[in-house]
Amino acid sequence: MKVLFGVDIGGTQIKIGCFSEKGILLDKWAVDTDLSEGGRRIIPAVAAEIRSYASGHQISLKEVAGVGMGIPGPVDGDGYVKVCVNLHWREFNPVTELQKEIPGICAAAENDANLAALGEYYCGAGKGTSSMMLVTLGTGVGGGIIIGGNIISGAHGIAGEIGHITTHIEEYEKCNCGNIGCVDQFASATGMVRIMKKLLGSGEFESPLLAKNDFSAKDISECAEDGDPAAKKCLEICMGALGEGLSAFAHAFDPELYVIGGGVSKAGRIIIDAIEKEYEKHFFLIEKGAKITLAVLGNDAGIIGGSILAAKQAGLA
Amino acid sequence: MKVLFGVDIGGTQIKIGCFSEKGILLDKWAVDTDLSEGGRRIIPAVAAEIRSYASGHQISLKEVAGVGMGIPGPVDGDGYVKVCVNLHWREFNPVTELQKEIPGICAAAENDANLAALGEYYCGAGKGTSSMMLVTLGTGVGGGIIIGGNIISGAHGIAGEIGHITTHIEEYEKCNCGNIGCVDQFASATGMVRIMKKLLGSGEFESPLLAKNDFSAKDISECAEDGDPAAKKCLEICMGALGEGLSAFAHAFDPELYVIGGGVSKAGRIIIDAIEKEYEKHFFLIEKGAKITLAVLGNDAGIIGGSILAAKQAGLA
Repeated sequence: MKVLFGVDIGGTQIKIGCFSEKGILLDKWAVDTDLSEGGRRIIPAVAAEIRSYASGHQISLKEVAGVGMGIPGPVDGDGYVKVCVNLHWREFNPVTELQKEIPGICAAAENDANLAALGEYYCGAGKGTSSMMLVTLGTGVGGGIIIGGNIISGAHGIAGEIGHITTHIEEYEKCNCGNIGCVDQFASATGMVRIMKKLLGSGEFESPLLAKNDFSAKDISECAEDGDPAAKKCLEICMGALGEGLSAFAHAFDPELYVIGGGVSKAGRIIIDAIEKEYEKHFFLIEKGAKITLAVLGNDAGIIGGSILAAKQAGLA
Repeated sequence: MKVLFGVDIGGTQIKIGCFSEKGILLDKWAVDTDLSEGGRRIIPAVAAEIRSYASGHQISLKEVAGVGMGIPGPVDGDGYVKVCVNLHWREFNPVTELQKEIPGICAAAENDANLAALGEYYCGAGKGTSSMMLVTLGTGVGGGIIIGGNIISGAHGIAGEIGHITTHIEEYEKCNCGNIGCVDQFASATGMVRIMKKLLGSGEFESPLLAKNDFSAKDISECAEDGDPAAKKCLEICMGALGEGLSAFAHAFDPELYVIGGGVSKAGRIIIDAIEKEYEKHFFLIEKGAKITLAVLGNDAGIIGGSILAAKQAGLA
């Protein structure tokens, strides 16, 4: 039996999935990421997990058809990573490193948002579409674009960077990138909390969150669902910023579908409604635009995308 | 000897080029577009030109390896045109129509801006790049995107529609599309004249154009080159709007290069400088962004792109 491994390497955890040749998820598990020695222990740990799983399941290493790895940063075509802050890597190639650990193994690496997009495209919300963009709403805002089954990473590895296009919203604070008014300043979890604090600080709103010293984007979404006016206004502003950005992107490469994922998207339909409202306002021919929907694969998108990348690399897909 | 024809069908003229199998332009000419009978005479005219050129040059129709046609509107993958206002076409397929005129001929059709982009990518300013967008500055603002040699037309045929993304510029007049503040309202020839009239109307500027009842985008560019403050300000605003749009597009699909073509681009470096200034302001990691340069093929971009499309269709490229 041939198997594929999808590996989603994050700064906290490494998620691993073992898939059949036909893409059926057989097992999944996670281990903590060991960031010591400049992240040099990460790939040996991935190799050890693969070896150990294989030997425990009577799978020879020759039966491992491929390994696809997701990296939280830009990755070149051949797997080379110039800098990956979260993993402490500099000028590092996880593909060749894995091949040192397991000689002859077929492996590939990609940016983790692109990999999650590949997962949603083939096995999730994007199934059956010709082109799609996955937007991940987490601590930051990320994105991955798939056209005709291929990842579009761009000439400089920054395609899908919706977090840093400038919106219309009046803003005085600077984004981490140095610009002002970026989508990331609103639609990220951090951005939502920032805007909610501003709204509450204005004294114009009553809200259960006023009593809390600290709250999360999840708290805001929950309050909005309960009808809290400040939280509803916050979602309107923050998801509106994303809607404006998605409209600009629709004019750029015109995807069939936008898929909204990541922690913040768990709030569901209320998020989509707020995005769509502003998206439609800025779209010049609304009847032709991309549909917007929620992601369905959750945390598994990365390992599923990894297994697809592995299958492609092995010539199986 | 095998030959290819590139045909650029416009509302006023049909431009035709005959190319060797290797892409060398052997001859080019133009005929007026006959729009009578709902545009039904256009394709027979193209066929007649091909037949007449071939017979005049001892080329048998079997030696015509392919014909690539550019259409001023959206074209589906198989050449189908739902509506083309400029050619008076509705639910019309120029490919099958040409094949009725010349049975067995290998033919393909594409949007004319995409075709010009293909020309610049393979034979012009984009030669040697991995991805590129051509922006055509004419009566309106158009665009064509090429990634890895393939035209990106999008799921609804509107990829590259940079003319209708919303800029930051304060604006009260409506764009033709119904929105307010579109790139097209500034960076098109029409937009430039509109803005220049506003600037002159403010009474703040002296300008040689004040004495003219009517002037063109070309007049504005010429005055700007002569140092006229109003014309310089006009270019700054209008090309700045385009720069802002190009920045959003760079975050979307991250091309290696932007190529600026069309009538307005003839002003040269002064246009590029104004675009770059605003592009850099809105780009979050400027050292990684696309380069911006002028188109080089001029009016031949369409027929050259047509010959490449024909070669691709014939399996020669």
